Amino acid sequence: MDTVSTNRSHGGTQGVYSHHSEATATAMTFSVFVPDHAEGAKLPVLWYLSGLTCTHANVTEKGEFRAACAKAGVIFIAPDTSPRGDDVPDDEGYDFGKGAGFYVDATQAPWATHFKMRRYVEQELPALIAAQFPMADMGRQGITGHSMGGHGALTVALRNPGRFRSVSAFSPIVSPLNCPWGEKALGGYLGSDKAAWRAYDACALIEDGAQLPDLLVDQGDADNFLHEQLKTGLLVMACRKAGIPATIRMQPGYDHSYYFISTFMAEHVAWHAQRLKG
Amino acid sequence: MDTVSTNRSHGGTQGVYSHHSEATATAMTFSVFVPDHAEGAKLPVLWYLSGLTCTHANVTEKGEFRAACAKAGVIFIAPDTSPRGDDVPDDEGYDFGKGAGFYVDATQAPWATHFKMRRYVEQELPALIAAQFPMADMGRQGITGHSMGGHGALTVALRNPGRFRSVSAFSPIVSPLNCPWGEKALGGYLGSDKAAWRAYDACALIEDGAQLPDLLVDQGDADNFLHEQLKTGLLVMACRKAGIPATIRMQPGYDHSYYFISTFMAEHVAWHAQRLKG
Repeated sequence: MDTVSTNRSHGGTQGVYSHHSEATATAMTFSVFVPDHAEGAKLPVLWYLSGLTCTHANVTEKGEFRAACAKAGVIFIAPDTSPRGDDVPDDEGYDFGKGAGFYVDATQAPWATHFKMRRYVEQELPALIAAQFPMADMGRQGITGHSMGGHGALTVALRNPGRFRSVSAFSPIVSPLNCPWGEKALGGYLGSDKAAWRAYDACALIEDGAQLPDLLVDQGDADNFLHEQLKTGLLVMACRKAGIPATIRMQPGYDHSYYFISTFMAEHVAWHAQRLKG
Repeated sequence: MDTVSTNRSHGGTQGVYSHHSEATATAMTFSVFVPDHAEGAKLPVLWYLSGLTCTHANVTEKGEFRAACAKAGVIFIAPDTSPRGDDVPDDEGYDFGKGAGFYVDATQAPWATHFKMRRYVEQELPALIAAQFPMADMGRQGITGHSMGGHGALTVALRNPGRFRSVSAFSPIVSPLNCPWGEKALGGYLGSDKAAWRAYDACALIEDGAQLPDLLVDQGDADNFLHEQLKTGLLVMACRKAGIPATIRMQPGYDHSYYFISTFMAEHVAWHAQRLKG
């Protein structure tokens, strides 16, 4: 693991790191914020999965999470959204290929060689964090994310019962089976057999019996993607049917941007911290 | 004035606007955050002048001021740092020309045609704000800024006694007469007669008798520019000699970046709000 940069911020260290990933067969970059802490102390970990077109940098620069994480003593980790590099295939659209890994292990050529983002965020990066950040308490993990990364947070948590004590999302894609972004991405990465898609669809996973301890979702009602792509209502129904205690809040006037995310970030961090430290 | 964008954020409206400036003879872009407020209410105004290479966007995206401004009921205004456009002359360096207006009214060719940033931030933009934002209480203004913009904030306040109830700065250039950035910029914009530079040098203005009500400055002690360019010690001495009650804080481990600025932004906003609303 190489250190790209470290900056002191909000009484902690904001680092950016890179490493060679076996999962994606590329270099991968991610950011970690570690609040100041007593020597030997172990801090809970909050994962943040980013949305379409983003790298680790968007939330790291605009997410306004550091003050809340420093106050709560929570480590904040932001992976990239796809493999990168000249060898990695891409698509002309912003919603497939680079910047749009959808946290999927692709099975279709030419994507299967590098687009193993499920394995990367579920297995490889957590192992690297555990090895390289001895203050990270991997027994106390929470996960959140935005849009495509909200989809990632929900599906990673649903597929790994017991791993996360807390789960939240900002304007998540709740059902790739039922929106154009999902149809393009899962069709491209996984092929046309939609049975294979269900492991990457939060609503389908819930229908199929996966559980969450509870859930916090914030969604702007002025979000341009709400009705065609995000379809928050499907998640409301799935949680109600499955008895998952979900707090899904429509936020009047807010859109899909980091102006929205940053507004509610401190509340999400506090919500996770309560569950991670309780 | 044209509206470039508005986004709901932190219980207020983050806008970006453009207009034709008579001072610079170019289009100019700026951002304004207006917290939600009762109809007819008047809110105090905090100006933020940005540093080298920045536009309005850096602080707007990374400054973490909105939560504090919404809580305090303070409008936050971020102008650009220079004129822009194909007609505007530029320099190969990052520290002169576009992105580096130094809040000076240039007198030297070819800069004098467009680089009238003093007139722009002191006269033209405040008049536009007063006309276009009826909730802005121009009787209650504060000013802050970063680096070149800290220089701007200090010198604008020192030259306009009584206009600002509160003045602060993040890692300001405190004496352009005594640093390479200042020598290049003021030499280029104002010519070699250093008597003309004194109106743009915070320490010289204080030596020449200008006053401030009080002053808050934060400066990182791991800032690469501290010893060669910023020279905070000169401001400490000038304020002490002139009897200006200045709180100048060296912040251990912090650098020159927005990771530093954002850490102390909420304290600066609260400090201004106390004076603007007292």
